[in-house]
Amino acid sequence: MITEIAVVQIIPGQEQDFEKAIAIAVSTVLTTAAGYMNFNLHRGIESPSTYTFLIQWRSLEDHTLGFRESDLFVQWRAIIGKHFAAPPQVEHWEGITI
Amino acid sequence: MITEIAVVQIIPGQEQDFEKAIAIAVSTVLTTAAGYMNFNLHRGIESPSTYTFLIQWRSLEDHTLGFRESDLFVQWRAIIGKHFAAPPQVEHWEGITI
Repeated sequence: MITEIAVVQIIPGQEQDFEKAIAIAVSTVLTTAAGYMNFNLHRGIESPSTYTFLIQWRSLEDHTLGFRESDLFVQWRAIIGKHFAAPPQVEHWEGITI
Repeated sequence: MITEIAVVQIIPGQEQDFEKAIAIAVSTVLTTAAGYMNFNLHRGIESPSTYTFLIQWRSLEDHTLGFRESDLFVQWRAIIGKHFAAPPQVEHWEGITI
């Protein structure tokens, strides 16, 4: 399992619209993707127009190939992308058990 | 509850030492802090010398005042800080239920 961590700045004033949009995008698009496991949304305290979301995938390829190369990604971005002030910063992370 | 997300670049070659050190720092220092709730460690797939850790606190002040202003923070940094290639980037986040 890997974690996608995405940080995205939303157009100021559109925070509530973005939260509604991503709720729809998760329930109608993301949860149907192969290898999708979990989603968490966080809003910045120091930067209230910035959100971090963490998505857990079964494998890196489930995200980078299976999801991003599919029509589901087009649908996902169509629902949430209009609220982005800039392209999201996305990286992938391996969980470390300590 | 709030989430502290810290991103830190480790001196290349010291990744395993850092993982051992942070395990000790969590078990001996962090878990004794008032308001500490949970810790997760992630290692970068694109940037394997970079780690993200997420710490959940009961409140923002439990971290920024209670922990950071205490001797526990000095002990925490003494254990893990020697492996840092640069100061960590730390921000606080509010969980959003969608």
